[in-house]
Amino acid sequence: MLVGGVGGAKLAYGLYRVMPPEDLTIIVNTGDDFWHYGLRICPDLDTVMYTLAELVDKTNGWGVAGDTRNMIEGLRHFGETPWFGLGDKDLATHLLRTQMWHSGETLTKITRRLTSSLHISCTILPMTDTPVATIFNTVEAGELPFQEYFVKHRWQPTVTSLRFDDIENAVVSTSVRSAIENADTIIIGPSNPWLSVDPILNIPEMRDLIVARDVPRIAVTPIIAGDAVKGPAAKLMREWGYPVSAERVAQHYGDVINGFIHDVADADFDTAKLTDSVVHSVAMDTMMTTYEKREQLARQILKWTEETYL
Amino acid sequence: MLVGGVGGAKLAYGLYRVMPPEDLTIIVNTGDDFWHYGLRICPDLDTVMYTLAELVDKTNGWGVAGDTRNMIEGLRHFGETPWFGLGDKDLATHLLRTQMWHSGETLTKITRRLTSSLHISCTILPMTDTPVATIFNTVEAGELPFQEYFVKHRWQPTVTSLRFDDIENAVVSTSVRSAIENADTIIIGPSNPWLSVDPILNIPEMRDLIVARDVPRIAVTPIIAGDAVKGPAAKLMREWGYPVSAERVAQHYGDVINGFIHDVADADFDTAKLTDSVVHSVAMDTMMTTYEKREQLARQILKWTEETYL
Repeated sequence: MLVGGVGGAKLAYGLYRVMPPEDLTIIVNTGDDFWHYGLRICPDLDTVMYTLAELVDKTNGWGVAGDTRNMIEGLRHFGETPWFGLGDKDLATHLLRTQMWHSGETLTKITRRLTSSLHISCTILPMTDTPVATIFNTVEAGELPFQEYFVKHRWQPTVTSLRFDDIENAVVSTSVRSAIENADTIIIGPSNPWLSVDPILNIPEMRDLIVARDVPRIAVTPIIAGDAVKGPAAKLMREWGYPVSAERVAQHYGDVINGFIHDVADADFDTAKLTDSVVHSVAMDTMMTTYEKREQLARQILKWTEETYL
Repeated sequence: MLVGGVGGAKLAYGLYRVMPPEDLTIIVNTGDDFWHYGLRICPDLDTVMYTLAELVDKTNGWGVAGDTRNMIEGLRHFGETPWFGLGDKDLATHLLRTQMWHSGETLTKITRRLTSSLHISCTILPMTDTPVATIFNTVEAGELPFQEYFVKHRWQPTVTSLRFDDIENAVVSTSVRSAIENADTIIIGPSNPWLSVDPILNIPEMRDLIVARDVPRIAVTPIIAGDAVKGPAAKLMREWGYPVSAERVAQHYGDVINGFIHDVADADFDTAKLTDSVVHSVAMDTMMTTYEKREQLARQILKWTEETYL
């Protein structure tokens, strides 16, 4: 499956619990990755890792449960004004990753080592080993790298456009290629289509690799009843003059998908608005408010896929 | 003054409080410095910085007051078994230092930036910008880098010898050279002569630079009444068959010093045992058990020096 942060991680967790973990590969957006105080930070990879390892802070959906911010306090002694809330337990991940990074290991291998140390038995892959940076053009604050837009400015500036720096140099890793070429089903998680999934799809060759697969290729909507479950998806759609609807999300994915899951709350979901490539769609309860509902949605998706795509 | 960690830092603090800080330069041992989880850690520089900035943990004499160890907890999630107790607030220092280190700055400049951010108004200098590593030969555990001997093995192995790796390549920085060439008085703190001061003195040219100065060159004993105030000095002296005495410390410094301060507890201090170069010696209360006693000792040293060396 392809995912970004919190929403995608919840569905990933559900799938991880209800299917043989060795059959599950999670390809994670790394467009949000950045350097901060000399540390290589990969927010979406960490969210997925922490969620699957059951270390995640359940209130936020990201970060480590029961974490403190004392390193940040330490920085203040030096007159620093850090804007990114690095937790102390969380720091261990960044330190281990950065150490391996400096020793020349790929992010794929680093991630494999970290997930394996956390006893995660499915495969978590960065979308590419090439550093790619999502950059926003905003009305109020000009150009902003992802985390400055998202965290420092709390996604409040109006976004006119975004781009993925260095995406043209990004290479599909052999692990990602093999995962896509051998997948029985490809699921795009309920993640932000523009911020979390587009970086993945815009890696050269990636879209073609996916479209070439004659298997269920299903996206789960991150938009329910005209709003985003979390984050700036709906706000961005409004800023760009799009209808804030699940249909618009499905349209955005175009021929990447051949199936779409909208929420039961959108009873008036209009299949006529879907791209021709989307041959199947279905309503499910996609609000994963409990651990049970994550597993329930995962089970439903697998069952529906099996029954619908024959 | 020349110092190592806790003991030297206490006297440094006293001097910092009783003299014009712009006239005080503290040259700090860096033989204990090491890499740990990708961070450049300089324990003695940190102890001196934290002590002067009044951030230090008063119980330990090192580390940051009120610190936590949650990053270490985070490492345990990954199956790591860290043996060096990095505090979370303390980590901020290592992160800032490591970031500047990787950007190619010298340790001298890094230290100047850190101390200036902490509003420390005297000068703290690493003994050299060249990485030097104190290595122990031990009976029980073979060769051990400083922190493994000191922290991991709690200085319990028997030391047969020690060496300072790469000391032959170490260069006296222009800042250290200038500090020594312009000093009115050179004080060697109550630090471990073999582990904390010898690395400084063994930098090529350093000993000659100091001996060439016709100013008071005074060491303060770290040995009181046949024992070390803190750390392994007395244990090492016993392992090497030395008498555990202040006189033996003075002898060790040889012609580097021309004055020596022993503790009032050593009433039978025998000046006949001193090297010829040591023309003055005096007893003072060197047990800096309170902040007042640090300042009192500092004042006494400055006064005695002024009155004795005419």
